[in-house]
Amino acid sequence: MKESVIVVYEKPELKDPIFIEGLPGIGLVGKLAADHLIKELNAKKFAELYSPHFLHQVLVKKDSTVDLMKNEFYYWKGGEEYRDIIIITGDTQVPPTDSYGHFEVVGKMLDFVGEFGTKEIITMGGFQVPELQGEPKVLGSVTHVELKERYKDLPIIFREDEGGAIVGAAGLLLGIGKLRGMRGISLLGESLGYVVDAKAAKAVLSVVARILGIEIDMSALDERAKETEEILKKVQEMQRAMFEQQMPQPTGEEEDRGYL
Amino acid sequence: MKESVIVVYEKPELKDPIFIEGLPGIGLVGKLAADHLIKELNAKKFAELYSPHFLHQVLVKKDSTVDLMKNEFYYWKGGEEYRDIIIITGDTQVPPTDSYGHFEVVGKMLDFVGEFGTKEIITMGGFQVPELQGEPKVLGSVTHVELKERYKDLPIIFREDEGGAIVGAAGLLLGIGKLRGMRGISLLGESLGYVVDAKAAKAVLSVVARILGIEIDMSALDERAKETEEILKKVQEMQRAMFEQQMPQPTGEEEDRGYL
Amino acid sequence: MKESVIVVYEKPELKDPIFIEGLPGIGLVGKLAADHLIKELNAKKFAELYSPHFLHQVLVKKDSTVDLMKNEFYYWKGGEEYRDIIIITGDTQVPPTDSYGHFEVVGKMLDFVGEFGTKEIITMGGFQVPELQGEPKVLGSVTHVELKERYKDLPIIFREDEGGAIVGAAGLLLGIGKLRGMRGISLLGESLGYVVDAKAAKAVLSVVARILGIEIDMSALDERAKETEEILKKVQEMQRAMFEQQMPQPTGEEEDRGYL
Amino acid sequence: MKESVIVVYEKPELKDPIFIEGLPGIGLVGKLAADHLIKELNAKKFAELYSPHFLHQVLVKKDSTVDLMKNEFYYWKGGEEYRDIIIITGDTQVPPTDSYGHFEVVGKMLDFVGEFGTKEIITMGGFQVPELQGEPKVLGSVTHVELKERYKDLPIIFREDEGGAIVGAAGLLLGIGKLRGMRGISLLGESLGYVVDAKAAKAVLSVVARILGIEIDMSALDERAKETEEILKKVQEMQRAMFEQQMPQPTGEEEDRGYL
Repeated sequence: MKESVIVVYEKPELKDPIFIEGLPGIGLVGKLAADHLIKELNAKKFAELYSPHFLHQVLVKKDSTVDLMKNEFYYWKGGEEYRDIIIITGDTQVPPTDSYGHFEVVGKMLDFVGEFGTKEIITMGGFQVPELQGEPKVLGSVTHVELKERYKDLPIIFREDEGGAIVGAAGLLLGIGKLRGMRGISLLGESLGYVVDAKAAKAVLSVVARILGIEIDMSALDERAKETEEILKKVQEMQRAMFEQQMPQPTGEEEDRGYL
Repeated sequence: MKESVIVVYEKPELKDPIFIEGLPGIGLVGKLAADHLIKELNAKKFAELYSPHFLHQVLVKKDSTVDLMKNEFYYWKGGEEYRDIIIITGDTQVPPTDSYGHFEVVGKMLDFVGEFGTKEIITMGGFQVPELQGEPKVLGSVTHVELKERYKDLPIIFREDEGGAIVGAAGLLLGIGKLRGMRGISLLGESLGYVVDAKAAKAVLSVVARILGIEIDMSALDERAKETEEILKKVQEMQRAMFEQQMPQPTGEEEDRGYL
Repeated sequence: MKESVIVVYEKPELKDPIFIEGLPGIGLVGKLAADHLIKELNAKKFAELYSPHFLHQVLVKKDSTVDLMKNEFYYWKGGEEYRDIIIITGDTQVPPTDSYGHFEVVGKMLDFVGEFGTKEIITMGGFQVPELQGEPKVLGSVTHVELKERYKDLPIIFREDEGGAIVGAAGLLLGIGKLRGMRGISLLGESLGYVVDAKAAKAVLSVVARILGIEIDMSALDERAKETEEILKKVQEMQRAMFEQQMPQPTGEEEDRGYL
Repeated sequence: MKESVIVVYEKPELKDPIFIEGLPGIGLVGKLAADHLIKELNAKKFAELYSPHFLHQVLVKKDSTVDLMKNEFYYWKGGEEYRDIIIITGDTQVPPTDSYGHFEVVGKMLDFVGEFGTKEIITMGGFQVPELQGEPKVLGSVTHVELKERYKDLPIIFREDEGGAIVGAAGLLLGIGKLRGMRGISLLGESLGYVVDAKAAKAVLSVVARILGIEIDMSALDERAKETEEILKKVQEMQRAMFEQQMPQPTGEEEDRGYL
């Protein structure tokens, strides 16, 4: 495998779909929001992205089967009333040490959603803050300044922190997308970043719901967050234990070590 | 050399061969098991894999000759009674910092064994545990859930640790293989991971023998493990000594330093 | 995006333009000098370079819009009296861990300015010194020894520190340019390196002005330096805070963290 | 520049030339030996190798001109009496973190010397030891076991440290060369590794002289070592000073810092 590949299970006919990203990041805010949106809309998986830039490992599932790390595309048809949607979520992003890989993967994503006529993007994530004051706010940034006008009635604090960054897919999708004539908004929920942050996900998702003009039942989100947190904790403990036992070895051996 | 190459010494005719991997990893379990299997079956080397993703060094042999780091393919013909087998073992895997290289190398391996009609894979390795209770258990994970049924009478504990990982070739062969329509099982022997672990290798290999329906004499395995350990210890000491002497140098110079 | 791309907004007709580089580096000397030169000449942006070797993030602007990290090309027509000029500046260079990326990006820059007939290059930057004695000196090095003769009346100290280095675009533009038959000079202003160093930028820029035979009003440079410094300080504080909160996470998650 | 390039100044006609490598490494033994050999034979430079895998910087020379890091090919015609020789030396090797780059560069070298009919290789370097007992010994390893027989009367200790390594070009030239049907020997002089080690270089070079059947006057070697050491010390001090001042900066800025 020498570049990212997308395995396509179905080619839905979509009309001007909006592309929504929620991949792992700060507080797992984006992923949690995307997972919940998929569940509530009963969106359908139609493609998977695999990349040689993801970690060189497979993940074990509850039924003892394994899969490469992957990202997954879902679609939902809005019918007469709502817009069609493509959602991407997944286990992983390219590690932070591989900038090149990030560009490659995000380029492939945009190629793919472009085939379905995507011209608009929403990216979801967390924005790490040292402390929270009241409910988490949702910070927005856009590809084109006129989008601020369009969304001015929504509870979005538009960022003005010149030089601030949006790292990873949540940023690159907008940046590369813009070069290809797409438009988009990044919605980041304030988060302490340490935990699986259901509150921030809820804040972000409620803004997304208003953009899409749909209703999303948030009641299951807390439950989902708790489950995710438990799995994550187990994984992290195991990985930390293994990590501590690692030491230089002559033959580049590595196998079933959960090193970072 | 710009990508991995496989030098082929012989093109055996094989019938539906099963591909068995045992490369260096935790406790050298997989490698030890593969080496022993090769020896006991008197399997024949027919190809070698070289990669620009392996460490940029040659290894010295007892007779003062040197060779690039490499992986080796062996075959064994089962005749009327048993299945044909391809085994891969070697000095090394791609270093853990080069995910991309892992994918490239494993892709090449699968291309190659695919030419011989391989549709099934067994990967062998160690699973690091903080302490052992009794004999090491063999943990299994599979590409397809129906394989659990097929192997249900064997002494395999099927993993249910959702989110657990199998890192390196032992994982990727299954993950990428699955994308190519292959099936397989990972067999990891519990190991403290510090030593060349003959016990874990024996546990894994006895499960493999039952899958293959062959008998393997394990009596020489302990001896082999001890030898390997002695060589390894010498190498590690030498490398650690050199490593400590390393310091920043202006010209990127490096030669005959056994840095990790 | 698999290699650096240059988005061209205009194809000016230029006559034997001299190419001047000022990208971020020690004390931001080069960038500050380039920004000031662009402003004072009222040079016009005509192209942007984007690279998968830059950090995988977008930067937020004051108006809440985001852009990929980028480098920008400006041109200025000298008319009858002066030489035509192409200036490059930008937010970033390729990170120091990616030598390959540096070569790729600088190769692309030279391809591009070559199309406009560029045969001569000036690179601007800072030279870190432990302490300053009086005004910062300007240290020069050249692609061809006869350039020392040509510039002998200018206040340039030609470097004689055999084995000294010029790292990044300021060096590679000369090194790769030389292989392509171009000529050039590197002008580095002595700097303590910690701050946005307007003094060093002024020193370098006044030498550049004399080479070009133009007058540059330096009065606004200090003001510009102060502004840059304030933004930078904010960014750095934010990034350091986030950096400290980073810790190993299982899913390669990263998003909106300003890690280096 | 996207892969290594060789700039050829002359295409000498050579008869079965032997290829001798001496690039920077432990104690600069190989480079020192190669430089001395070139000088004493009055060998002629005929090609230079540039690589995007070398550090992204230019080096300043005494006359204030700059050049990319490079490797240089020299040839010497042995006439009736001696064998023709190609020698490679240079400022640098690919950094130790870039295995892939090492393979790419060494592959290019072998392509190039192969064009001149090279079938035999000698690589020279240092072998780091914690302490020296008497004069430094010369340790040998070979591509083919019959070479030990051929060189059995020379003062070479053939290595038997199974699993020992030869890192970098000195190793890869033999390893990759062997795959291409070439033969060769690695000659490593014992060295404490900290200094520019003229003694080790002399030991290695005197073995090379006997292999070639030529006489080499060693009297200037100590002098050359001392000069090299002084330059190196200056460079290292400067680099260490700069290195210590480095800290995380937001814009990937780097320029004229001699970081390792």
